[in-house]
Amino acid sequence: MKITPISGFPEFLPAQRIVEQHFLDVIRETFELHGFPSIETRAVEPLPRLMGKGGDADKEIYGVSRLDRDDAGDFRLDLGAFDDALGLHFDLTVPFARYVLENAGHLSFPFRRHQIQKVWRGERPQEGRYREFTQADIDVVDVGELAPHFEAEMPLVIAEVFRKLPVGRMVIQVNNRKIPEGFYLGIGIDDVGGTLRIVDKLDKIGPAKVKDQLVEAGRTAEQADQCLALAAIRSEDLSFVEQVRALGVEHPTLDEGLDALAAVIRAGLDHAPGAMVADLKIARGLDYYTGTVYETQLVGHESWGSFCSGGRYDSLASDGKTTYPGVGISIGVSRLLGLLIGKGLLVASRSTPACVLVAVNDEESRAVSTRVATELRARGIACEVAPKPAKFGKQIRYAERRGIPYVWFPAAAGAGDSGDSGSGGSGGSGGDQVKDIRSGDQVDADATTWEPPVQDLHPQVLRAEHTTDQS
Amino acid sequence: MKITPISGFPEFLPAQRIVEQHFLDVIRETFELHGFPSIETRAVEPLPRLMGKGGDADKEIYGVSRLDRDDAGDFRLDLGAFDDALGLHFDLTVPFARYVLENAGHLSFPFRRHQIQKVWRGERPQEGRYREFTQADIDVVDVGELAPHFEAEMPLVIAEVFRKLPVGRMVIQVNNRKIPEGFYLGIGIDDVGGTLRIVDKLDKIGPAKVKDQLVEAGRTAEQADQCLALAAIRSEDLSFVEQVRALGVEHPTLDEGLDALAAVIRAGLDHAPGAMVADLKIARGLDYYTGTVYETQLVGHESWGSFCSGGRYDSLASDGKTTYPGVGISIGVSRLLGLLIGKGLLVASRSTPACVLVAVNDEESRAVSTRVATELRARGIACEVAPKPAKFGKQIRYAERRGIPYVWFPAAAGAGDSGDSGSGGSGGSGGDQVKDIRSGDQVDADATTWEPPVQDLHPQVLRAEHTTDQS
Repeated sequence: MKITPISGFPEFLPAQRIVEQHFLDVIRETFELHGFPSIETRAVEPLPRLMGKGGDADKEIYGVSRLDRDDAGDFRLDLGAFDDALGLHFDLTVPFARYVLENAGHLSFPFRRHQIQKVWRGERPQEGRYREFTQADIDVVDVGELAPHFEAEMPLVIAEVFRKLPVGRMVIQVNNRKIPEGFYLGIGIDDVGGTLRIVDKLDKIGPAKVKDQLVEAGRTAEQADQCLALAAIRSEDLSFVEQVRALGVEHPTLDEGLDALAAVIRAGLDHAPGAMVADLKIARGLDYYTGTVYETQLVGHESWGSFCSGGRYDSLASDGKTTYPGVGISIGVSRLLGLLIGKGLLVASRSTPACVLVAVNDEESRAVSTRVATELRARGIACEVAPKPAKFGKQIRYAERRGIPYVWFPAAAGAGDSGDSGSGGSGGSGGDQVKDIRSGDQVDADATTWEPPVQDLHPQVLRAEHTTDQS
Repeated sequence: MKITPISGFPEFLPAQRIVEQHFLDVIRETFELHGFPSIETRAVEPLPRLMGKGGDADKEIYGVSRLDRDDAGDFRLDLGAFDDALGLHFDLTVPFARYVLENAGHLSFPFRRHQIQKVWRGERPQEGRYREFTQADIDVVDVGELAPHFEAEMPLVIAEVFRKLPVGRMVIQVNNRKIPEGFYLGIGIDDVGGTLRIVDKLDKIGPAKVKDQLVEAGRTAEQADQCLALAAIRSEDLSFVEQVRALGVEHPTLDEGLDALAAVIRAGLDHAPGAMVADLKIARGLDYYTGTVYETQLVGHESWGSFCSGGRYDSLASDGKTTYPGVGISIGVSRLLGLLIGKGLLVASRSTPACVLVAVNDEESRAVSTRVATELRARGIACEVAPKPAKFGKQIRYAERRGIPYVWFPAAAGAGDSGDSGSGGSGGSGGDQVKDIRSGDQVDADATTWEPPVQDLHPQVLRAEHTTDQS
């Protein structure tokens, strides 16, 4: 059976997976520090829920069905009745909304949760775009009404995540949907959604073409210029408010939007200076956002697009009687790592959690080496016992190939045994010894007390030189 | 749209998920302490790989396909060419074998890895048996030959996992396939596989029926008695060797098996006393095991069956030229948790990671409370800022409902504001105060130095009284 990778379903080698684990650990730990408990939802949802009311298959959904045989004995998939048919979830928001409705009686509101899981989309794969990928979401939902301060809290959590990750500077771009809405209404544009969708293309097609399209769609040249002037406003502080006022447009929805965005940016200035920017061109294509919207840019890699997006929605879920407004952000973990690891910008210091390889003198004394390992593990030091009682030089090379920094020589080895390796072996003191195989330093050590330097205890994730970065 | 759970796809509430996270954290940490790096494989494999050469669909595989519309506009799944068709993996061994072959050039052998992921099987769901569930595997594979000491290492890792988990006593039952094989050959039985499959039913149908079936299958009554005598042998120490010898059967394969099993049990006595038992009726149905085989029993819940099984296989993977023998064990995490949580035997001390709720005096001073939270988080103390500047009694009840043990009152609160709650509020010292809402104790506190007792820092997983256990 030929073995070939499946396009869009990437897999990491162990050292790359260590980088991914570090990212996922930091994300989870930060979410939990901010009081977001974890939930996981099943991988499948009924197709009608995934597609929405319109049966819209634009999301490129993967259907799932138990394998069946037809009359000719060939395997086939039988979707069954549409209402019961299942598909793999394509994001974590749709399953979360369903989870809230299903468990509302068991949850306390406002309900906050984080969710880190794989999702699947049948889109055409390209660099940083996969068919199977991991997202990390936080959301807060409440019953009936959601306090606006949650819209300021979300980006503070995200700012802390990115401050702790070795990715360089990540800027969170924030806008409020009510600003363009009020502004457009204030200059006599009624088709807010249609206008927003055209302005949203600004980064892709540039201002001249956006203006052309706005005019084609029935806006006046002056209205189009005003829309572009609004979208050009960007400030790290509260000065965006004055810049908008200077355009001379008045509308109560615009005032609401400016106040709301000012509150979010003020919280950023207070608690995460430098992490946020008011950017009035951010629109987020999705229609369900109704207030604050978020995107992110990795400074120096702006062309990679947003790795983390979200916003406020007035109706995350509704059971007909009760409506649940919410606000959330989603980190595209696989997308970010696919680029950073793929371009060689991040590497792990070793390909195994093991900090120590305990050498084996001969197969009969393996129990001695295992006891050393047990002592080290009891104090949180990951280790592995050498697979073979080979010459010490060979055992050291086994550690070297995996990046394990220390080799432990149990006492029974004696000095004589190690001479033939040229590099291993003890100094002849008669007790256990441990060798830092990077420096060659070898010292007496006791398995019940020895500690590696803290930076060697776990694999480190390192930023590589930027020379391989082509973006 | 009606919301109903999907049978076989269980989901946990946040407090239950905290129990699951604790299990997964302990499992991962222990695997890593033993030097097993993590890998994850994609959720899908080509159908021919999942089914094996015979196209055997016994595994109840879920096929996966992008959703398509037929000429009538109805949604359907098109499996496409069988060789390219995809299915969800039903275990982690098949994908691991493929991963080893695909990446052999990038891996160092012997290669050890752990893998904790969801798998899917379309079987009929029942208590503790799901269609989507999590497994946690460790395996070691080598090229051409695998040293026997790895067969002793696997159960030591598992013993450490279960010693750290609040599950009570878990016993690892160990056997070696060569013992029944050599024994059967020694008493003139040639159909080793067929005999083993019948003896494997011992726990289900009892010795009398096993004897009947053995005789029906052509064994003599005396052979059947000998098979049953072998299967009845069980010892925590090495005495099983003498008990087998006492049956008076001789065969070189039997000798090999006894030596190998003795080595595994001896390692258990040395490094994990009480965790292992030699149990000669353990067979593992799967044909690919060739040496040591493992099952487990939760003491007091033997009827629940094995939660953790595995063994040695001479050919985990092969590319025609090179063969990769291996040994591995898989923990059925969802099965174990489904029973323990489902029967109410394990509970979490709270439904959120937050250890502290920082109260809010009024919406204008939310920034003061957020700064307290930031200080606490910087020292690893998870907290949440209260959602509303309600009366302190109400804010305390918010914490109570989630099991958050501490409520923090920032200084600006003053004593007067809290009088109306009856339970909250400061003692009037003018500085920050923190209240243990379980005891009611309230003390002065500084957010840059205060520490909760270590058992309150993270949610605890507690063994509940056994009164709800019906098994």
